Amino acid sequence: MVNEDIMKSLAIKTESKIVLVVADGIGDIPSKNNQTVLETASIPNLDRLASQAICGLTDPVSRGITPGSGPAHLALFGYDPLKYQIGRGVLEALGVGMELTPYDLACRGNFATLNEEGIITDRRAGRIATEVNKKICRIMQDKIKQIREVKVIITPGKEHRFVVVFRGKDLEEGLSDADPQAVGKRIKFAEPLHQGAKKTAEVVNEFINKATEILKEHYPANTVLLRGFAKHPGLPTMNELFKLTPAAIATYPMYKGLAKLVGMEILETGETIEEEFETLKKNYEKFDFFYVHIKKTDSYGEDGKFEEKVKVIEEVDKFIPEIINLKPDVLVVTGDHSTPALLKGHSWHPNPFMLFSKYIRVDEVKQFNENECVKGGLGRFAAVEALPLMLANALKLQKYGA
Amino acid sequence: MVNEDIMKSLAIKTESKIVLVVADGIGDIPSKNNQTVLETASIPNLDRLASQAICGLTDPVSRGITPGSGPAHLALFGYDPLKYQIGRGVLEALGVGMELTPYDLACRGNFATLNEEGIITDRRAGRIATEVNKKICRIMQDKIKQIREVKVIITPGKEHRFVVVFRGKDLEEGLSDADPQAVGKRIKFAEPLHQGAKKTAEVVNEFINKATEILKEHYPANTVLLRGFAKHPGLPTMNELFKLTPAAIATYPMYKGLAKLVGMEILETGETIEEEFETLKKNYEKFDFFYVHIKKTDSYGEDGKFEEKVKVIEEVDKFIPEIINLKPDVLVVTGDHSTPALLKGHSWHPNPFMLFSKYIRVDEVKQFNENECVKGGLGRFAAVEALPLMLANALKLQKYGA
Repeated sequence: MVNEDIMKSLAIKTESKIVLVVADGIGDIPSKNNQTVLETASIPNLDRLASQAICGLTDPVSRGITPGSGPAHLALFGYDPLKYQIGRGVLEALGVGMELTPYDLACRGNFATLNEEGIITDRRAGRIATEVNKKICRIMQDKIKQIREVKVIITPGKEHRFVVVFRGKDLEEGLSDADPQAVGKRIKFAEPLHQGAKKTAEVVNEFINKATEILKEHYPANTVLLRGFAKHPGLPTMNELFKLTPAAIATYPMYKGLAKLVGMEILETGETIEEEFETLKKNYEKFDFFYVHIKKTDSYGEDGKFEEKVKVIEEVDKFIPEIINLKPDVLVVTGDHSTPALLKGHSWHPNPFMLFSKYIRVDEVKQFNENECVKGGLGRFAAVEALPLMLANALKLQKYGA
Repeated sequence: MVNEDIMKSLAIKTESKIVLVVADGIGDIPSKNNQTVLETASIPNLDRLASQAICGLTDPVSRGITPGSGPAHLALFGYDPLKYQIGRGVLEALGVGMELTPYDLACRGNFATLNEEGIITDRRAGRIATEVNKKICRIMQDKIKQIREVKVIITPGKEHRFVVVFRGKDLEEGLSDADPQAVGKRIKFAEPLHQGAKKTAEVVNEFINKATEILKEHYPANTVLLRGFAKHPGLPTMNELFKLTPAAIATYPMYKGLAKLVGMEILETGETIEEEFETLKKNYEKFDFFYVHIKKTDSYGEDGKFEEKVKVIEEVDKFIPEIINLKPDVLVVTGDHSTPALLKGHSWHPNPFMLFSKYIRVDEVKQFNENECVKGGLGRFAAVEALPLMLANALKLQKYGA
């Protein structure tokens, strides 16, 4: 792919509009009746769109590589997922709905149990109730607002999980996990993996000591384990790179957070697919790029629930005519990665992809599914090339070279 | 493709097993009756496998590039053939069955003829008989065991060809060929192409002088020409990179040598295809990756013997059910490069490739040949991506990114 500087130099601002619908984890492998979810589902509108579109298959990272949500989405947004990596802590922070700034170092935390000899006996503190978690997070937050010059923000998750964000100048990535990874061991402190991370390690370790002191009375949640220290990745925005004014319509915090990292405006929306498309219609005039995220295809894939995944895509199908009615210059329907019900998790299989615009070479594909997309006019390509393709079809890219 | 550090971090050790069958040079272009070897051959088992597998075409290096055996195999083993290059001398040494260590510098040698004025009159010494070659190699070896601190190992090849391995500390690559490349010229000594190779050049040139002295009485083989100086490439092993415990089943020394370079265990086997698959069955419990090399498809391609190449692949076909009976988690059948009978040599045409596992999207390809594989679900891809794909399908790769 051309590099960012070239993309920047080619992208122009126009009135044309792009709608990118991401059915998370939609790609499947045949299981029920030897068919995939898309082959099983009744999706007349998506199939009709396929027959008027140009289709293909995308690899989020490269063949054989199963991506997490971070790299899979970054690629779709036009960012090389091997160049930009979003650390676990940042993704967790986004997942609990925290807003991150470029000064933030985030990590995931577990409450854990220490015995009287200072030995960790349970790395999950007996999976304490979420309500208890909320209460002790509040207590910790009240007593630890700052360490040295660094602001500390603690947000509860589910059961024993929480997120800590350290906000301050000169914080650095490159800390080992402060987690012995096994019971029967003592508290492990974060170690700097390079010289520049020394001060950051001291702040983090001071937090661990203070938290353990505060939690003394809260057995079994009487210490903390911290992992996945990661800084805000400081991505250039989609506006900087592609001159887009992008908006995100998503129901889950993590995807809103990912969209925010690339400079999208997050539109308020409801929990249902209907509400998401309603939000699209309502805001259609205000932006020129819309990312619409459908979460449940992935969730049911993760749970191995084939039939439920079928129903979600059938519901999406109902709203396709409404999107077409908006007359977007470019409409793409695809997934970020595959989540086959059979595997109950993300997988390496490529994503079905279709692009509709005035300027395509319509191919022979008449159904939107994995094996039809194999025959599509776009062939198989890296997901990071999807955004240039959308821009091109929206006539938002100038000629390269004279 | 993701780089080696990422592959290392994603690969995990599991019980699952991968069998990679490489029919050397199997790819063909239509010649007889306008069909390729695979189209002509009766291969019911390979065709049945194709109908249950996912197919595609691989480029060993890149479009239009005809690879040697070294890069073609390295790619299949998951090594970027543009990053890792195996020098001619090393390949020759492997070809005559020598075992190389990281301290070795290898080159290919020719016996040649000098006239009384010191002018080379025949670069192949009249293609002396292999038996004569063996005899004078023995004489040279008896008289030249060491030069300075460097051990010298001489191994005869066929006719006028032999291999010299210089084994010692601080030997360096980067020598010009010690071969004038034409008759009517004087002996040409090796020149260091960089400062660090100066000592190595001196050792090599001392060898040439000594050999020429010893060979005085052995007209027409009365001097030596040395070419393709190359060091052991010091590749990381497949175990280091991919956490595999790999074994190789091959009948020709060069392929055993290539497999050894990437850390495979070389299994003892017989000369026939039947014996090779017997070896696979006998050792199936002990390893998790098997490379089975079929040489004769390539040999007959090189000789332009279309019918004989057909017969070899038909023989391979007979053993496919026995491999399937082993129930490998992943079975791949492919070539390393094409060797069209029409061209009588390696070519740039991509390789038919099929992969069978529980987790594939079976495509519509029902016959294993070049033009059917064009329509396969894997599309066309770089051969170096085949190994990540095998690992993924064997569930030996973790998720990339969160």
